[in-house]
Amino acid sequence: MKNPTAIILLHCPDQQGIITDVTKFITDNRGNIVYLDQYVDTIDRMLFMRIEWELEEFLIPRDKIKEYVDTLFSVRYQMNLNVFFSDVKPRMAVFVSKMSHCLYDLLARYKAGEWDIDIPCIISNHEDLRYVARQFDIPYYVWSINPDHSNKEEVETAEMELLEKEHVSFIVLARYMQVISNSMIEAYPHHIINIHHSFLPAFIGAKPYHQAYERGVKIIGATSHYVTAELDAGPIIEQDVVRITHKDIPESLVRKGRDLEKIVLSRAVSKHIERKILTYKNKTIIFS
Amino acid sequence: MKNPTAIILLHCPDQQGIITDVTKFITDNRGNIVYLDQYVDTIDRMLFMRIEWELEEFLIPRDKIKEYVDTLFSVRYQMNLNVFFSDVKPRMAVFVSKMSHCLYDLLARYKAGEWDIDIPCIISNHEDLRYVARQFDIPYYVWSINPDHSNKEEVETAEMELLEKEHVSFIVLARYMQVISNSMIEAYPHHIINIHHSFLPAFIGAKPYHQAYERGVKIIGATSHYVTAELDAGPIIEQDVVRITHKDIPESLVRKGRDLEKIVLSRAVSKHIERKILTYKNKTIIFS
Amino acid sequence: MKNPTAIILLHCPDQQGIITDVTKFITDNRGNIVYLDQYVDTIDRMLFMRIEWELEEFLIPRDKIKEYVDTLFSVRYQMNLNVFFSDVKPRMAVFVSKMSHCLYDLLARYKAGEWDIDIPCIISNHEDLRYVARQFDIPYYVWSINPDHSNKEEVETAEMELLEKEHVSFIVLARYMQVISNSMIEAYPHHIINIHHSFLPAFIGAKPYHQAYERGVKIIGATSHYVTAELDAGPIIEQDVVRITHKDIPESLVRKGRDLEKIVLSRAVSKHIERKILTYKNKTIIFS
Amino acid sequence: MKNPTAIILLHCPDQQGIITDVTKFITDNRGNIVYLDQYVDTIDRMLFMRIEWELEEFLIPRDKIKEYVDTLFSVRYQMNLNVFFSDVKPRMAVFVSKMSHCLYDLLARYKAGEWDIDIPCIISNHEDLRYVARQFDIPYYVWSINPDHSNKEEVETAEMELLEKEHVSFIVLARYMQVISNSMIEAYPHHIINIHHSFLPAFIGAKPYHQAYERGVKIIGATSHYVTAELDAGPIIEQDVVRITHKDIPESLVRKGRDLEKIVLSRAVSKHIERKILTYKNKTIIFS
Repeated sequence: MKNPTAIILLHCPDQQGIITDVTKFITDNRGNIVYLDQYVDTIDRMLFMRIEWELEEFLIPRDKIKEYVDTLFSVRYQMNLNVFFSDVKPRMAVFVSKMSHCLYDLLARYKAGEWDIDIPCIISNHEDLRYVARQFDIPYYVWSINPDHSNKEEVETAEMELLEKEHVSFIVLARYMQVISNSMIEAYPHHIINIHHSFLPAFIGAKPYHQAYERGVKIIGATSHYVTAELDAGPIIEQDVVRITHKDIPESLVRKGRDLEKIVLSRAVSKHIERKILTYKNKTIIFS
Repeated sequence: MKNPTAIILLHCPDQQGIITDVTKFITDNRGNIVYLDQYVDTIDRMLFMRIEWELEEFLIPRDKIKEYVDTLFSVRYQMNLNVFFSDVKPRMAVFVSKMSHCLYDLLARYKAGEWDIDIPCIISNHEDLRYVARQFDIPYYVWSINPDHSNKEEVETAEMELLEKEHVSFIVLARYMQVISNSMIEAYPHHIINIHHSFLPAFIGAKPYHQAYERGVKIIGATSHYVTAELDAGPIIEQDVVRITHKDIPESLVRKGRDLEKIVLSRAVSKHIERKILTYKNKTIIFS
Repeated sequence: MKNPTAIILLHCPDQQGIITDVTKFITDNRGNIVYLDQYVDTIDRMLFMRIEWELEEFLIPRDKIKEYVDTLFSVRYQMNLNVFFSDVKPRMAVFVSKMSHCLYDLLARYKAGEWDIDIPCIISNHEDLRYVARQFDIPYYVWSINPDHSNKEEVETAEMELLEKEHVSFIVLARYMQVISNSMIEAYPHHIINIHHSFLPAFIGAKPYHQAYERGVKIIGATSHYVTAELDAGPIIEQDVVRITHKDIPESLVRKGRDLEKIVLSRAVSKHIERKILTYKNKTIIFS
Repeated sequence: MKNPTAIILLHCPDQQGIITDVTKFITDNRGNIVYLDQYVDTIDRMLFMRIEWELEEFLIPRDKIKEYVDTLFSVRYQMNLNVFFSDVKPRMAVFVSKMSHCLYDLLARYKAGEWDIDIPCIISNHEDLRYVARQFDIPYYVWSINPDHSNKEEVETAEMELLEKEHVSFIVLARYMQVISNSMIEAYPHHIINIHHSFLPAFIGAKPYHQAYERGVKIIGATSHYVTAELDAGPIIEQDVVRITHKDIPESLVRKGRDLEKIVLSRAVSKHIERKILTYKNKTIIFS
């Protein structure tokens, strides 16, 4: 098995010496740095950094690392930082409605060991995809939402209890056709990944493929983003596109779009799992 | 030299027998068909067709062809059709402001013989690009537009007189930073090609690269379209995109976008010159 | 349920009147044409055509159609033609080795009803993916091949007996890591679809991602093609690419390539199932 | 005007402390670092780095910088390094034959001020493009090469005298249809940029578009690379592709390819001018 590593994701106002200080702290304490990437936003004068080191001979106990780096750097550099450990598996909940393509793509990667995560539950507002969950032996929970949304708050409360009980660390909306309410968004800030079936900010909202057909675009896209309070307006993680022609009708756009959606969603999930995404001012910094 | 050909672009409600009738008419009159492409819009039940044949041994004189096909087909099939001749060179006017990249790209293709057209004039609201026109020996006309647009109508009248005098058949806005007024649009319906520096319908209007930067998209685009009364809302001819990252600032987006713009504009101009574009319901059918 | 249709795929030396003759034959016999696309290879002077019509009121019984069109057209036009019926489900066999990503992608589409086919069997040279077959309730057959290939002929004989017994109409090699021998290729001419993990003809043969890494390319690709006697040299059906950088190592190329492979393979399978592929001179004509 | 900066491009075996040492050296001497990017090749354990700092208050005189960094770092870290200054304009020679598209694209960027370089000369084996050079007021030199190449050595000697006289720092082969001999390659190691009109390593050598047509690929590409002794085998700087179909004939591939070629070549030239390319083991590291 690979050596466990610690990962710090940080951002702070840029100034001389930060990289030197942080790397020196790690190497002085016998951490072997295996990854270092930084980016300076020259407009906002902000430094963004991801650093990863092997814990094996690191002198500071892992449960003290956060305390140390906070003490040493956070105040001094007005640093916003998080510490992760590579051997702590993220626990991912998947929300679905009726379409299986994104769900299958996520589960196939999970099952093939492409991602080192746990998937404790799949949550839906419909029974339709229970058979997929069963194929992969993952618990499937259904809460129907009334057409008038009268039970929506109640349903979300139940869902959040489940998420908490299952120690879910992030949520993937795999073509989940319900708007997430603010209380859930606030409980998982920048930890709910959605796939929107358009090249945002074009075609926000419902039926983007039909909108694309009506507008006569020559390229369609898909966008994965973190969910925020404003619909389809959260930080974009990944986008991709495919060329279409005048021969495409909404049905063929839906078909072509499915392949985009699953790729774009899975790329975002990969980056999230690898702790390679920083968010700042409603945008993402994606480390390579 | 290549044999001159006639080209018909038509659309009409789809019904059995149209293709047979049209091709039979041409071959019965000794026209050698060199191109035939058709497309049926199965939603609107419309047929779109482009047919091209050699005139050399064609029995009907070229100045009678339009009359014949109108008589034979237009009423019977409620057909909307146009006849073109390959040896009638389109005459293209280019409108520019201060940026040279699209202009250079158009003129380099023209000079290299890539397009069989004439460019009788370049029109601008600024003196800046006169040197480019001079390099290519093309008359360059400047009409400044007052900041309050008080002389805009007058300027457009003068421009349209020039366009008419020069027998201009279509107009290319090569990063021309002025809105075209309705009277000019109506004089050249679906014959004014614009390049918008975004992936429409995202980022309509001013400073799309800055809008893209603010939104944090991961891909930027460019869109060429026919100009209609509504800003940036005309039929899209061609689009293309390029991937960007969080490292891009508005300046680098402008730089990356320039290459997109010139390619996307030139592809649209090529298709227009080849008479391979049909417009219908604010969309384009692009024959291959 | 949709009305059953008949489909003709044909190619022949181009000459006037073929399209008229074929369409007239269908409409005269009360077939409602729902698809017509043709392409003329102007270099080889060949016509390629796909035509599809509803059988409901068609006057000629379906088991006589092939005979009629052969009599009427094949000799006269030196036509090479095939007749298919939309309600005859293709029967697809999948060959796999140890990697699950393409297999999952195929089966997820099958299960979701994206393709109207049957998958009677999955064949492998390893036990590894039996669990996937079991998840989807599809019989999984394993024939190990000795390292010295001493039993290869025997294995292929057994496989071909199974394929015949199961009335398999085409084979998909979903990252099957064995060369198919000529006897099987000849039994399924242009009916075995392979996915090669490079942008052919670059990096033919083994370990293309390692070859790509060594060469330092900036883009990698995947290619689906029909299998022919010469390795990786059959008619190309579909290709796609993804951009890489100097930071990519063979492992990350493998990871990025997986997504390409499954998309490119599935696009090829879709086109094959829809009977939209014609092969000619080791190339494919792909109807839209 | 922007402050002049110094740029170091270096690579060396990776070890702890290098980044710290180099950045400390610059900041200790009052250099304001404006760019830092590094990359560790984890397979070869090599560090690659680009660092750029403002010279205004830098304590070490610019003509001593190379000496200082050599003394301080080169031996100690087995470092291979180069120092550049942003206000030293690269001097680019362009070699052309008969096709104008790449030449126009280069000169349009130069004239528009996109690149801060000088172009002292255009060299050709044909008279054809003299008019382009004249349009841009750049000296144009022609040396015909005999069909039997009997005067090739003599011609190259004359060309190299011109290049030396004009203090040319790098050469761009803008569709120059002659093989460069080893003596010139050795005089400009990794300073001759070529554009090859295929997706290398596919279709090495002559007539790649015809090769692509024969093979029936679905995507064509273009590749810019540094010229080395082996034909079309030097370090790849940039590649891009465009989708084609069975309808494309060699002529349309040539046309589509032209746009690729000029974009791909210009991207490579931009990176070279910005000193953002390191070469190592016949590959390039391209800083962002």
